[in-house]
Amino acid sequence: MQFSAAQIAVLINGTVEGNPEVLVGSFGKIEEAVSGQLSFLANPKYEDYLYTTSASIIIVNDNLELKQPVTAALIRVKDAYSAFATLLSKYQELKTQQLVGRQEPSYVSTSAKMGEGVFIGAFAYIGENVTIGNQVKIFPQVFIGNNVTIEDNSIIHPGVKIYHDCKIGRQVTIHAGTVIGSDGFGFAPQADGSFKKVPQIGNVVVENGVEIGANATIDRATIGSTIIKAGAKLDNLIQVAHNVEVGNNTVIAAQAGVSGSTKIGSNVMIGGQAGIVGHISIADGSKINAQSGVSKSIKLPNTAVTGSPAFDYTSALRSQAVSRNLPELEKRIKELEQIVKSLKFEV
Amino acid sequence: MQFSAAQIAVLINGTVEGNPEVLVGSFGKIEEAVSGQLSFLANPKYEDYLYTTSASIIIVNDNLELKQPVTAALIRVKDAYSAFATLLSKYQELKTQQLVGRQEPSYVSTSAKMGEGVFIGAFAYIGENVTIGNQVKIFPQVFIGNNVTIEDNSIIHPGVKIYHDCKIGRQVTIHAGTVIGSDGFGFAPQADGSFKKVPQIGNVVVENGVEIGANATIDRATIGSTIIKAGAKLDNLIQVAHNVEVGNNTVIAAQAGVSGSTKIGSNVMIGGQAGIVGHISIADGSKINAQSGVSKSIKLPNTAVTGSPAFDYTSALRSQAVSRNLPELEKRIKELEQIVKSLKFEV
Amino acid sequence: MQFSAAQIAVLINGTVEGNPEVLVGSFGKIEEAVSGQLSFLANPKYEDYLYTTSASIIIVNDNLELKQPVTAALIRVKDAYSAFATLLSKYQELKTQQLVGRQEPSYVSTSAKMGEGVFIGAFAYIGENVTIGNQVKIFPQVFIGNNVTIEDNSIIHPGVKIYHDCKIGRQVTIHAGTVIGSDGFGFAPQADGSFKKVPQIGNVVVENGVEIGANATIDRATIGSTIIKAGAKLDNLIQVAHNVEVGNNTVIAAQAGVSGSTKIGSNVMIGGQAGIVGHISIADGSKINAQSGVSKSIKLPNTAVTGSPAFDYTSALRSQAVSRNLPELEKRIKELEQIVKSLKFEV
Repeated sequence: MQFSAAQIAVLINGTVEGNPEVLVGSFGKIEEAVSGQLSFLANPKYEDYLYTTSASIIIVNDNLELKQPVTAALIRVKDAYSAFATLLSKYQELKTQQLVGRQEPSYVSTSAKMGEGVFIGAFAYIGENVTIGNQVKIFPQVFIGNNVTIEDNSIIHPGVKIYHDCKIGRQVTIHAGTVIGSDGFGFAPQADGSFKKVPQIGNVVVENGVEIGANATIDRATIGSTIIKAGAKLDNLIQVAHNVEVGNNTVIAAQAGVSGSTKIGSNVMIGGQAGIVGHISIADGSKINAQSGVSKSIKLPNTAVTGSPAFDYTSALRSQAVSRNLPELEKRIKELEQIVKSLKFEV
Repeated sequence: MQFSAAQIAVLINGTVEGNPEVLVGSFGKIEEAVSGQLSFLANPKYEDYLYTTSASIIIVNDNLELKQPVTAALIRVKDAYSAFATLLSKYQELKTQQLVGRQEPSYVSTSAKMGEGVFIGAFAYIGENVTIGNQVKIFPQVFIGNNVTIEDNSIIHPGVKIYHDCKIGRQVTIHAGTVIGSDGFGFAPQADGSFKKVPQIGNVVVENGVEIGANATIDRATIGSTIIKAGAKLDNLIQVAHNVEVGNNTVIAAQAGVSGSTKIGSNVMIGGQAGIVGHISIADGSKINAQSGVSKSIKLPNTAVTGSPAFDYTSALRSQAVSRNLPELEKRIKELEQIVKSLKFEV
Repeated sequence: MQFSAAQIAVLINGTVEGNPEVLVGSFGKIEEAVSGQLSFLANPKYEDYLYTTSASIIIVNDNLELKQPVTAALIRVKDAYSAFATLLSKYQELKTQQLVGRQEPSYVSTSAKMGEGVFIGAFAYIGENVTIGNQVKIFPQVFIGNNVTIEDNSIIHPGVKIYHDCKIGRQVTIHAGTVIGSDGFGFAPQADGSFKKVPQIGNVVVENGVEIGANATIDRATIGSTIIKAGAKLDNLIQVAHNVEVGNNTVIAAQAGVSGSTKIGSNVMIGGQAGIVGHISIADGSKINAQSGVSKSIKLPNTAVTGSPAFDYTSALRSQAVSRNLPELEKRIKELEQIVKSLKFEV
């Protein structure tokens, strides 16, 4: 796919300066781009590259003043970065839409229902009574268990495994290797020290617009549903245990984990490698710092916490600061003790 | 599959109250169940739902006194929750047993030996000299390397990868995406700063009744075996390094990691995201709190530890409590210093 | 494959003592080896096994003095352990080289270019315009996206997923389940609290001699490349975010994570479960302790840090030591306060 400067200018509402017919077929950073690539200049720090880059087209802010002539065609817009991102999104959508049809060999049960414009990659497995919406893209080696539904425009990357009975909404993206609907970790201790499995018969519900990273795990509920609400964004290698609820537009960074039955509110931000114990609730808008260990419910919205165990951000930071001077503090106590001892003696 | 109230009552040793011929085909929470579903009431907190639920059959404790008539058929048993769990287990066993035969395309080497009642899902790969026991269920896209043995009644979920020479016992369950037998992380530093791989020629032995969650990794031994002993339960995204031993009925929660050659005793409980260094031993019955970092052997059985580095639970908690007051403590020291200074002056 | 003592002695530059024609076909620990196996004795602690083992051939140090006759053939070399490791490496190379050809069914796009001696396992997927070098081994169920290049002698274990446009160098090993090139975690917050995806159009470059463990995730750059430099060794379940650079011969232990755009120098050692925030740099030769949380750049080469947040190793350890005595310290302050109070009174 190749596009001219004139075509691109229309898409991003810009004006061309230079040759409107020059073509590009891919994207590059301004400092690395080669001929035939499109780039952008948003940060003035990089302006020098404007005069040395080999990019064929560069999107720039409309108030940019050139210090010398450029060889590339420029497209002037209000906000160069945002226009560039818009362009990328449209480009990726286009490429994704072009993926249509079924590669062979693949396994699609006869009871599965398929929408229009669906892509099924090679070695993908579609179980019984599965319902796949329009424009859903299922990459190679994906496993879709019995009775799963996936709604319109969702993208399931290679090797994702979705166990039976789970529900995936519209415009959901799930990255490679992620497992949805594995059994929750439920075992009843027996008198002899062994454990008896508690059957996990619930499912996972992933609502519209959710994105989940690679190699994450989201367990099915013991009974009922583990729920990832609309617009939530989960990074790679995240663990979400059975019966957890993750609220709307909540963001969870890589390698964080949430234990069973915990309810996380909306617009919460959870840092990487943070851990949250089970059976608590986290108020809307909470900010949980990376590597924190949250052991109690957060009841006040917009609370920021840090540390393991996690406490209110400001006081935790103050304690950490003193904590760094502990050897000095101990020395001061020792000195006081000696002075006081001598004082007592004198008295 | 549909079952009548009378059939179910026989399975769980209960007595039917209401229509013994009413049929159910699935399970639901009492507050959400629809017609054709079976539910249970164990917690009196939920008793009101008994009179409003659409469930067709409800398992209840035999001492329950009805406050008003119910439309569902009741099955009275000694312990409603436990009867319900038993029923679920039997139902899942039944469903699993019905999975038999080989889906195509799958790859089974001619030297592989298969027991009876085995299921091989589409795109599964069975290497040379593999031995698969009776009633083993191998889901789609599983990889079983050369010379692996899997004993009776084990369940290998979609996309699990088991490297060559590993041994899986009876009634083992391994969830989707887990990797068994990848190379241990062994590299010998060279004079020029680079690293030379130390070949990892051991294997992994997973004993009877072990359950391993999704996307976990268990490395093969450098030489000899990494061993997960009978009855151990490992959650999602766990790392077990080369030559580790995990004891009988030990439970490890999600995202915890155990470094090389460490020996973990029986009935140990390891919390989520905990880490254990290499070449140490953990006594039977130890409790390691979530996010702890265990850097020394735990020699005394039933010790509880917490923190990173981890210490005895009670004293660590006491230190944490004081640690939270550090700024206050520092203030008190400052005041003491001023008083003492003035005292000295007076004297 | 079977080898005689005489053949092995040539490979490792040793001299045979005993029957040079005895054959072995596999390896075993000296305390467990059976007839037909080769073992080694490096640690004098294990010398007793020399006289009881059933191993057929044992590699020993050339200065070993026998206390009684042995049944096995001995091969005397300068350094028994190193000779054994060399032998293992050669044996594994040999076995790997023998894997050649294409198992069916597999999916190889017609535009893919293949070198010589390549192995493509069943259910592997090779996308458009992929270039595979000589002697590359691609195990079953691997996904190789469009335009990926993999250079000579690399080994891609079962179920690895490599997204489009990524570049893998020579002699790279990637273990099962690892995902290379998934989207970086980039979302722009919108006025209504939702997030808009920032397209991730860069790639991942894995240089020569890198080894990556199982179920790890390495995200593609937003624009440009996420780079793992030559000789780096990454363990299982590691997260490397978009636009990160990992330096030459840097070693990262299991479950550690590196956030976006951070640059890690050469010969750095990162412990298990450590976390590093985004947009910082880590100097060459730094040592980051397990479970540390690095929140600031490390500018001085060879710095060792520990703790979360991480500080210079020695002072952090000193603080930790005092921290353990905090309750005692608080008691001493209380005592001082009482004495001072009484002193004041007396004065």
